[in-house]
Amino acid sequence: MSEHDEFSIIDQLFKPLAGLSREARGLIDDVAVIAGDSTQDLVINTDALVAGVHFFEHDPLDLVARKLMRVNLSDIVAKGAKPYGYQLMTAWPRGTSYSEKADFVRGLKTEQDRFGVDLFGGDTVSTYGPLVVSMTMFGRVPAGRALSRLGARAGDKVLISGYIGQGYLGLKALQGQLMGLSHADVNEVISAYHLPEIRADLAPVILEHARSSMDVSDGLLADADHLARANNLMIRLDLNTVPTSLSARAAIASGLSPVDLVTGGDDYQILCTADEAGAKALIMAGFYEIGMCLGVSEDTPAGAELWADDRRLDAVAKGYTHPL
Amino acid sequence: MSEHDEFSIIDQLFKPLAGLSREARGLIDDVAVIAGDSTQDLVINTDALVAGVHFFEHDPLDLVARKLMRVNLSDIVAKGAKPYGYQLMTAWPRGTSYSEKADFVRGLKTEQDRFGVDLFGGDTVSTYGPLVVSMTMFGRVPAGRALSRLGARAGDKVLISGYIGQGYLGLKALQGQLMGLSHADVNEVISAYHLPEIRADLAPVILEHARSSMDVSDGLLADADHLARANNLMIRLDLNTVPTSLSARAAIASGLSPVDLVTGGDDYQILCTADEAGAKALIMAGFYEIGMCLGVSEDTPAGAELWADDRRLDAVAKGYTHPL
Repeated sequence: MSEHDEFSIIDQLFKPLAGLSREARGLIDDVAVIAGDSTQDLVINTDALVAGVHFFEHDPLDLVARKLMRVNLSDIVAKGAKPYGYQLMTAWPRGTSYSEKADFVRGLKTEQDRFGVDLFGGDTVSTYGPLVVSMTMFGRVPAGRALSRLGARAGDKVLISGYIGQGYLGLKALQGQLMGLSHADVNEVISAYHLPEIRADLAPVILEHARSSMDVSDGLLADADHLARANNLMIRLDLNTVPTSLSARAAIASGLSPVDLVTGGDDYQILCTADEAGAKALIMAGFYEIGMCLGVSEDTPAGAELWADDRRLDAVAKGYTHPL
Repeated sequence: MSEHDEFSIIDQLFKPLAGLSREARGLIDDVAVIAGDSTQDLVINTDALVAGVHFFEHDPLDLVARKLMRVNLSDIVAKGAKPYGYQLMTAWPRGTSYSEKADFVRGLKTEQDRFGVDLFGGDTVSTYGPLVVSMTMFGRVPAGRALSRLGARAGDKVLISGYIGQGYLGLKALQGQLMGLSHADVNEVISAYHLPEIRADLAPVILEHARSSMDVSDGLLADADHLARANNLMIRLDLNTVPTSLSARAAIASGLSPVDLVTGGDDYQILCTADEAGAKALIMAGFYEIGMCLGVSEDTPAGAELWADDRRLDAVAKGYTHPL
């Protein structure tokens, strides 16, 4: 990675601003945690979407609003917290009509009703550029119990909350680069890209049974790598056990590499680790077991590896290929 | 006001999203309040700045960061709360250099040290448009004590925490439209525009002695009008008692209308009301008495009026003139 990518900006520039504050958790966890009363803490997440970067310039604004809320909820739920309410910032391009703003608000209302959150406050401003929307979401969790990506141990199972690759396939479909899928399959993956499924119902079971947890937003393999390194562990993912939809399997049958599914982004599933008993409970609740945490050694350095059929798949450039 | 201005967007579109949640305070207060433990609450404010709208495209980024933090702190302090920490969203134009980002971070650090806050978390993204930065600031206040713009009563004195018009004069100076000021005076008002003074030290005295409070950001007269209408009161402001700097008085001597100072924005002073005894304490702490709350009647409808020398100054278009 270059000196100037997002992660180095966070490490080099922003981490010193977080200092030793307990709330920031060293910026390692995507969320902040503010101690509340003796019974509960506040879990806080901020995520922004920019037109032309995170969504298409002409996407319907109700979908943009709904996605904004879901990508924010994803982090809250992954920490085992119950969604609570949010602050909203909207920077509208000059000339955005009242009815477009009303569309955006309609999308927010749909998600509010679904996830039981209210708007707490915010700011609405104008811009000469593309639409920028940002949300700070609050969740509530029993005091001291908010999960972290830290806490995984060697021997833990690695689990995922649902299908991997749906968002990536949706993006490919919108770019006209997805072949061999039926109309219905294409609609399904586009819908997953616009509106990732958020399993808020899983928060209590994660809280009860997971040892470490985070949401997948940079792609399964990259995020498993982040989790592994944060815990100084090796995570071995088994590509054959990664859950994929029927649409994804149709795409693979038409020539798509299954490896692309685990390196593509836009998934927003929950990645967690648990001991044997915890993993059983999580699987009962709908999680899939996809790998294993190992202690580090010369043979198993910290990070995530992708395996299939007892062979390790090596990273080459952005994709992954079988090593010779 | 048109159907589509910022206030109607908030009233018509966003207020329904806040619903009856206690935290949102009906979006009337610029801040949200989350109940914490039995001893303290969390006061929350979100304000954003956009290049080309809220600051000049080529303003040094450390100044932009410092202003962002101060406009956010302004609302926190106005509610009597102690600054605590913040979430940050930065949408960087493609091509922003590492050293520019480092400048921005340096500005944040300066203010963190001054006001005793830490970065808790956030998001950093890219944009094809101008820089957009947004902050959600947290403050702490004794439980149930956060001030509101509600609570003013007929008979209350109206007070302001410092000079009015400095930000407006700074903007005029930067636009090359300010005549008759010395070099030193011009520097002073430009500095006030870039870095409004935030009187965090006043929070405890406001908490103790004010009945209602808000920060001035839309201009003194407009914000006094908001406060008056929220309380169904008439506020009579006496232009002659509004505190102005020596620079402002030099500008007035050179032909600037003093009325422009109270209708211009970018001030970020604290506007509050208090009873007789409270007003005395606030004045001792540095506030200035600038008006009076009156009950409404046919002669004194809800809203703010500007008076000078026993004459009411009437609003015409954007400016104000003496009625005939």
